[in-house]
Amino acid sequence: MLKQAANDPASRAARIPVMEIFGPTVQGEGMVVGRKTRFVRTAGCDYRCSWCDSAFTWDGTGKDDIRQLTPDDIIRELTALDGSAPDHVTLSGGNPALLPQLGALIAALRAAGAAVALETQGSKWQDWFLEIDELTLSPKPPSSGMTTDWGALERIALRLAQGGRRFSLKVVIFDEIDLAYASEVHRRYPGIPFYLQSGNDRLGEQDRMRLLPYLLERYEWLVDRVVADPGLRDVHVLPQLHTWIWGNKKRRLER
Amino acid sequence: MLKQAANDPASRAARIPVMEIFGPTVQGEGMVVGRKTRFVRTAGCDYRCSWCDSAFTWDGTGKDDIRQLTPDDIIRELTALDGSAPDHVTLSGGNPALLPQLGALIAALRAAGAAVALETQGSKWQDWFLEIDELTLSPKPPSSGMTTDWGALERIALRLAQGGRRFSLKVVIFDEIDLAYASEVHRRYPGIPFYLQSGNDRLGEQDRMRLLPYLLERYEWLVDRVVADPGLRDVHVLPQLHTWIWGNKKRRLER
Ligand code: SF4
Ligand code: SF4
Repeated sequence: MLKQAANDPASRAARIPVMEIFGPTVQGEGMVVGRKTRFVRTAGCDYRCSWCDSAFTWDGTGKDDIRQLTPDDIIRELTALDGSAPDHVTLSGGNPALLPQLGALIAALRAAGAAVALETQGSKWQDWFLEIDELTLSPKPPSSGMTTDWGALERIALRLAQGGRRFSLKVVIFDEIDLAYASEVHRRYPGIPFYLQSGNDRLGEQDRMRLLPYLLERYEWLVDRVVADPGLRDVHVLPQLHTWIWGNKKRRLER
Repeated sequence: MLKQAANDPASRAARIPVMEIFGPTVQGEGMVVGRKTRFVRTAGCDYRCSWCDSAFTWDGTGKDDIRQLTPDDIIRELTALDGSAPDHVTLSGGNPALLPQLGALIAALRAAGAAVALETQGSKWQDWFLEIDELTLSPKPPSSGMTTDWGALERIALRLAQGGRRFSLKVVIFDEIDLAYASEVHRRYPGIPFYLQSGNDRLGEQDRMRLLPYLLERYEWLVDRVVADPGLRDVHVLPQLHTWIWGNKKRRLER
């Protein structure tokens, strides 16, 4: 029996700590905003951002929801969501870049014809970054309470460039200090597609119709600041569409 | 004097009927949603869509605003907007594809280092389509009251493919019949990036805060329908962000 299990490819593959699998839904932010996609959210993060909207992936409150799944398990669940093979999958966290074993899932998804998108803060490298179709590095601004390791970010950007892999940069903005930080990121990487995103610091607001005018006001503020700044060229300014539609629900992109 | 004028390249270039020049602002829709850009809106359209939000470009109400400008005039005005050279310009209408002379402006913009985006309904071809960085063909669904010339659209798609020019397709959706039309467009061009956009049929609503919940509801409806339809793969679903922020103002992307 042991031998049989060892010969089964699914059980040989290292398992992935999965928090939730959901969709099809629509990507609410960043370089593939609006894309119909399915999500796999992994558990665990090396950061502790003050305004993290996925704190349940690392603060212990979601630990009973974590399942250790193989790539085959995950693809089976992604397919079962609506009975059709996934054509686009977004890997989210937490920080999925903590998981070297994610490479096997990415390879299996791409072999099955799905495009793969992933976002990470740029604190850790994984070789499978080179296999991601739509990779976003999202370094965290001062309002997060985190400190950017510019050397780590630079090493990642360099390896992606050497590997010929296109990626985008995204910074979430809450205030003027964050905006200055974003300008610094853009100054360091002028050739990389750059996305500024208005942040949501009202994570406790349960009434979506009260949240909406506030989110709109924050987006307007950011648009105003960016369009008035001739130093911010070749940039995109986006809201988080999913919070506009679904508010602060935990599984916020699931219906 | 006549001879001197004839030797002046600016006066030799055919003039372009321009309705408005504005920005920097943010692109509110489609494949470059969120992009910081400047707009040149040309006058004239071969269509008469029932829900056209730029009817002043063709219904006579804006005729006193039309100016006949050379490419040099236009680039000068684009630069004067904030004193910096434009890095991204969106050509809008009306239907800019009615204007063969737009090619000179596009060439001048690209020579000056600006990327150029353009949207047209796909009823007319221009050779300068091959010079557009971000070209969107937006055939009009039944709710517009227009009838799609599938042959014209096909000839344009073919020439773009032969010219190696990437483009996207976009359909604005108001109802189930439009959605069926969009599925037909997507079925005809499965490999072309496809954008579904929720339409705004409350063009008379002047109170932005009353318009907003309605626009949100229309976007939610469209997202629900698209995520539930396994036939709609490899698609994006987007609202018109500018109407969320700026409502139904005529120069709706200008502050
Ligand atoms: S990096 Fe992302 S998941 Fe981690 S704490 Fe920050 S916001 Fe949350
Ligand atoms: S094609 Fe565009 S500009 Fe022309 S009538 Fe229709 S919506 Fe208006």
